[in-house]
Amino acid sequence: MKVAIQGELGSFSHEAAGKMLPRAGVVSCARSAEVFDRVEKGYVQAAVIPIENSLAGSVAEHFDLLLTRDVFIHREFPLRIRHNLIAPPGVKLADVRRVFSHPIALDQCRNFFRIRSKIQAMPFYDTAGSVRHVMTETIPDAAAIAPAQAARQYGGRVLLTGLEDDQQNYTRFLLISKSHKVGRGSNKTSIGFALKNLPGALFKALSVFALRDIDLSKIESRPLRGRPWEYVFFVDILHGNDEAARNALRHLAEIAEFVKVLGVYPAAHRVLT
Amino acid sequence: MKVAIQGELGSFSHEAAGKMLPRAGVVSCARSAEVFDRVEKGYVQAAVIPIENSLAGSVAEHFDLLLTRDVFIHREFPLRIRHNLIAPPGVKLADVRRVFSHPIALDQCRNFFRIRSKIQAMPFYDTAGSVRHVMTETIPDAAAIAPAQAARQYGGRVLLTGLEDDQQNYTRFLLISKSHKVGRGSNKTSIGFALKNLPGALFKALSVFALRDIDLSKIESRPLRGRPWEYVFFVDILHGNDEAARNALRHLAEIAEFVKVLGVYPAAHRVLT
Repeated sequence: MKVAIQGELGSFSHEAAGKMLPRAGVVSCARSAEVFDRVEKGYVQAAVIPIENSLAGSVAEHFDLLLTRDVFIHREFPLRIRHNLIAPPGVKLADVRRVFSHPIALDQCRNFFRIRSKIQAMPFYDTAGSVRHVMTETIPDAAAIAPAQAARQYGGRVLLTGLEDDQQNYTRFLLISKSHKVGRGSNKTSIGFALKNLPGALFKALSVFALRDIDLSKIESRPLRGRPWEYVFFVDILHGNDEAARNALRHLAEIAEFVKVLGVYPAAHRVLT
Repeated sequence: MKVAIQGELGSFSHEAAGKMLPRAGVVSCARSAEVFDRVEKGYVQAAVIPIENSLAGSVAEHFDLLLTRDVFIHREFPLRIRHNLIAPPGVKLADVRRVFSHPIALDQCRNFFRIRSKIQAMPFYDTAGSVRHVMTETIPDAAAIAPAQAARQYGGRVLLTGLEDDQQNYTRFLLISKSHKVGRGSNKTSIGFALKNLPGALFKALSVFALRDIDLSKIESRPLRGRPWEYVFFVDILHGNDEAARNALRHLAEIAEFVKVLGVYPAAHRVLT
């Protein structure tokens, strides 16, 4: 089985794919649109994509792609974003003078650099790529900040873990595929729907859930591309494919310009806090 | 007058600050929390912060800071994110072999690099910083991708503009200050409120607007930090400080755990599409 991710091998997406599908082969794609292309064309059986991060917010591009592409969400997984100091075997912590990583990862590890004033932060294209860089160049005083997956991928050693300043750093990943078959234990449904921007339109739309005591775990509005004054809403409801949910979605279709069920899947135990 | 931004001089935040407060001196801060600190302590009179990008989504950290800090939104401004090729005076387009920028900016200009196969993309810490880098090092074959503001800041020349693949790339910026005084022409209100995660809670909360024909232009939920199963909602309503809005907010306070008015300001003409 093959699973596509956006970004390099050894990235957080790779780490999430490993947790969700431990035995699958991982295919790295440069762009998110390529990930969705490969799933739709059947070149891979599934993809694992980040959808929201507790500090950075939603990945808007992935919401847009879920709405427009013929894919379906089957699982979710909240991954703790843990930054590690990774060096080639033989390089000790005391030797390290330069640490490579993506600017965002470097920025999330400011305390590390504040305490160790001899160590210089070196911006690099990619977290996982920075591990490959220090491994292939074998620079005697260099290390990288990256997911633990990158150490496994490129044969680096984890010298320190938990370098991130804020430990409430989670990314919610989704497993998507072409199949629309709903799996066992599915108790959560992600939908997207569009409304004309009329007063009370959203209120009416949400009434279809409230009237049936269906709880929401997420709501987000986005302007609909190329159609000013129309909005698309992304909502997660805490119901699977049961009668109440089916009735609510039929009712919603009466009110909305369109409704798309993005997936029906088991809710992860861990909440994004 | 001094206005704080997060990031380097010459950044998109600097460009937005220049559009919103053309005569203010701009103070660059490394972190967003520092920007809010300076506003709260009165070291600067205002700050200009990005709140959402049409491709990347909301800046979750800024929503969290608006909720917890004693600041108020006074204006909004949608800035078109336009990437420029900037080089030191004397360097011609035909000379350029290496182009420095932040990885995200390089990634948004893939077509540029695809067409010009002789030019190498060089990841750098910061867009504006990459202009300063090519200016100070005076590398004869190097240029940078950055906002036009960075060319003005560091004396570079814009060789090409509009390098971004997707022109629907806008960032909405907010002007914040300590004052809670509502300006003339204010017809939009941003609020944050928390609800217990009970079925129908959001529906009841939104009824306070629907019952008064008050339109919403944005809604977004976020888990409340450290309080699992409670959510905070960020809502923009298309009313200023009028009787209907005041009544709706009083009504909302009966339902919500807390309500905070984040700002009352004039709606920008341009919608984020």
